[in-house]
Amino acid sequence: MEQQKRREVNDWKEKLRKKEDLAKAVTILGKMPAPEITEILQDLENEIIVEVFPLLPESKQGLVFAEFSMPRRIDLFHNVSKRWFAGIFEKAPSDERADTFQQLTKEEQVSLLPYIQKSIRDDVLQLSKYPPETAGGIMSTDFCTINGKETCSEAIEKLRREGSHDKLLYYIYVVDENMKLLGFITLKDLMLANPNEIVLTIVGERFPVSELSEDRELVAAKIEKYELIAIPVVNQNRQLVGIVHHDDALEVIREEHTEDMEKFMGIVPGKGILNYNETSVWGHFRKRIIWLAILAIVGVLSGMIIRFYEGAISAFMILALYMPMVADTGGNSGSQAATVVIRAIALGQVSLKNWIYILIKEIRISILLALALGIIAFLIILFLSWEVETPLQHSLFYTASVISLALALQVISSTMIGAGLPLLVKRMGGDPALAASPAITTAVDISGLLIYFSIATLLLF
Amino acid sequence: MEQQKRREVNDWKEKLRKKEDLAKAVTILGKMPAPEITEILQDLENEIIVEVFPLLPESKQGLVFAEFSMPRRIDLFHNVSKRWFAGIFEKAPSDERADTFQQLTKEEQVSLLPYIQKSIRDDVLQLSKYPPETAGGIMSTDFCTINGKETCSEAIEKLRREGSHDKLLYYIYVVDENMKLLGFITLKDLMLANPNEIVLTIVGERFPVSELSEDRELVAAKIEKYELIAIPVVNQNRQLVGIVHHDDALEVIREEHTEDMEKFMGIVPGKGILNYNETSVWGHFRKRIIWLAILAIVGVLSGMIIRFYEGAISAFMILALYMPMVADTGGNSGSQAATVVIRAIALGQVSLKNWIYILIKEIRISILLALALGIIAFLIILFLSWEVETPLQHSLFYTASVISLALALQVISSTMIGAGLPLLVKRMGGDPALAASPAITTAVDISGLLIYFSIATLLLF
Repeated sequence: MEQQKRREVNDWKEKLRKKEDLAKAVTILGKMPAPEITEILQDLENEIIVEVFPLLPESKQGLVFAEFSMPRRIDLFHNVSKRWFAGIFEKAPSDERADTFQQLTKEEQVSLLPYIQKSIRDDVLQLSKYPPETAGGIMSTDFCTINGKETCSEAIEKLRREGSHDKLLYYIYVVDENMKLLGFITLKDLMLANPNEIVLTIVGERFPVSELSEDRELVAAKIEKYELIAIPVVNQNRQLVGIVHHDDALEVIREEHTEDMEKFMGIVPGKGILNYNETSVWGHFRKRIIWLAILAIVGVLSGMIIRFYEGAISAFMILALYMPMVADTGGNSGSQAATVVIRAIALGQVSLKNWIYILIKEIRISILLALALGIIAFLIILFLSWEVETPLQHSLFYTASVISLALALQVISSTMIGAGLPLLVKRMGGDPALAASPAITTAVDISGLLIYFSIATLLLF
Repeated sequence: MEQQKRREVNDWKEKLRKKEDLAKAVTILGKMPAPEITEILQDLENEIIVEVFPLLPESKQGLVFAEFSMPRRIDLFHNVSKRWFAGIFEKAPSDERADTFQQLTKEEQVSLLPYIQKSIRDDVLQLSKYPPETAGGIMSTDFCTINGKETCSEAIEKLRREGSHDKLLYYIYVVDENMKLLGFITLKDLMLANPNEIVLTIVGERFPVSELSEDRELVAAKIEKYELIAIPVVNQNRQLVGIVHHDDALEVIREEHTEDMEKFMGIVPGKGILNYNETSVWGHFRKRIIWLAILAIVGVLSGMIIRFYEGAISAFMILALYMPMVADTGGNSGSQAATVVIRAIALGQVSLKNWIYILIKEIRISILLALALGIIAFLIILFLSWEVETPLQHSLFYTASVISLALALQVISSTMIGAGLPLLVKRMGGDPALAASPAITTAVDISGLLIYFSIATLLLF
């Protein structure tokens, strides 16, 4: 299936490169969905793209360009005439235009602007001003409005006149003379309503909106909660300034996912989705080295604890044998607890107000885990070390009990640290995912070694 | 803001519990968006819900019910009359009906069916048959079709007649007499087209579809790629059988995210999203114990390696001091590489065909990391151990070089293991996320200790 698709894409590229009967070929190409056209055009040489694009249907040109990867768009900018580029750029969706514009240097921006018509130029400049992490930074200005005082049939007539360009026409936004948002309705509701009814009477009184400076993750969460196709964005005066589409929400959630995973693994998250291929070796290096270096330094602390208890280890070599088991199990149970709590916070299943409830639940879970793992450890020790010389003053049973007890305590304390740290970070206004491993693994490693050796020296010496 | 919201919800609950002027209160309530109504009703007593629901607008009843959590829906089923429940159940979206139905026991299903009207009964039974991981398992049957041979004005007339119920009316699906899917168009395109044009002529020739048995993650990926509001689902005969909405795609991606994080942390993923509160202590325990127990047992292997090199450690206590640094750094760099590669595979940025390219890139990255960390380690050792007694035959410089070399080799080998293992698992048809830590951390811990001690014994003895 996938291979067939790849062959098809390659055939198309061949065909376009030959430039035979180009107009006819592009007519067929133009009937395909935009993402598929982009798959074919994206890797083609600029001189071919320059010829193919104007032959595509007007409505597709901007969409196909918007599917191009950002580096490809910038590359195109550098290698075709400014006039040609501006022609395609103007047809792209408004949010994609602003994103592309922001990637240009100040000089490049200035060199492009004269070729863009005034209304679009103002729009691009305006949208480029908002920080990318906010509703303003991801919104588009491609929306249709109607005046609430019109009748439904007047409104439909207006949409028929203005709807020809490529605006998403699912919700119609109802505003007053000053663009203040009064509500929104679906095209369907407008069509099914009595044609003589005043629009405002069929609009819901309460409706979700986003504000310009709202965090984009919250915007995505609202779109998800209300199962919206798009959410309107308003300024302080409640004037409609843009909309955020559901597919932008999806992208935000994907990026959030990547960021979370990266934070979990101690990778410094970059802007947007890290593209593996587009990031240089040096870029990858920089994202990874920081945490690795910090943790390597902290790892020396563990070494110091081991050194400090050197005497205990030489007296009871059995302690060295089971030391990694105790340390690893602590790290793992701490990370598990952190993962579960961080996800529960992210999905809104638990709130900070319940922190005591969460900790009590985690204590109960960790006691079960500690019991089960303690018993397993006890049996492993008996099985593996039954012929090992134990120190004269203690039986193997007693020694195994002490090590298992240390393991059990370590599991309980790590689970507490793992569950508590994300709550603490959240309380202090940070992203709970920051408190995930490797920070927790390291914290728990050190506390684990201390628990292990203090219990061992207390009970064995 | 959040507090104000909570107060509002509580005020509403109070008001409804008092039952004063209930009809008037519910009229106001009914104008709120469905998710907000659910927030108010969900925790109310069943006897109040039974009175409030029928007073809500017809179109909201099913949507509000569909927002109820699954346990709340089942609880309602058990505590109200079957007839009342069936009345609300019938109004819910078709996919939510099927999901709810599947949660009932066989006996409960049989007790509910007689109260449901035949067409809906057939629909519920049909939808409940598909496995939940497939397109069929998440699709809904609430779609509108028109015959391709009709004119646009005839089609609009048909939609006006049939569109009154709560179907999503964004795409209109164009079919032939046998329900074979010929394409789909937006309501907007239908409205803006020439009224006398035959529908089929304005439908795109190529359009994305899903098949009944297609994996739901692939369905979500298609909705994302084509930025669709909904994707049609067809059977083997290319007959239209359902649609999957964009908000279902979003839910799939959220669940996938949770599953990935859980796999990363060695938690056995459950069905659907793990709800922290709804999962019992025992349920949490079972999800976590398996990997913890396996890793505890494997951790003994690390202990055995340490025991085996006991002689080396006693001769060079400096080895014990820096052992955790080398082991931890290996584990961390392996996990980082795995995270990056797994995300790149999931986002479709790299494919298995490029595995050699990925490994070469990772080697280059790891050499940079190894160099940087080796230098850091070398400096740490010089700084911390300058007054430590080194074994007579070697200078501190030489010893520090050996340990740093071991660390550098460990970083390179762990990065290779971390990047290679997910590719291998994917090659064998598994989910690459399964190959993430803790499996990698453990593998790398053991290989790291072996590298550390073999280099140390080779060069220091």
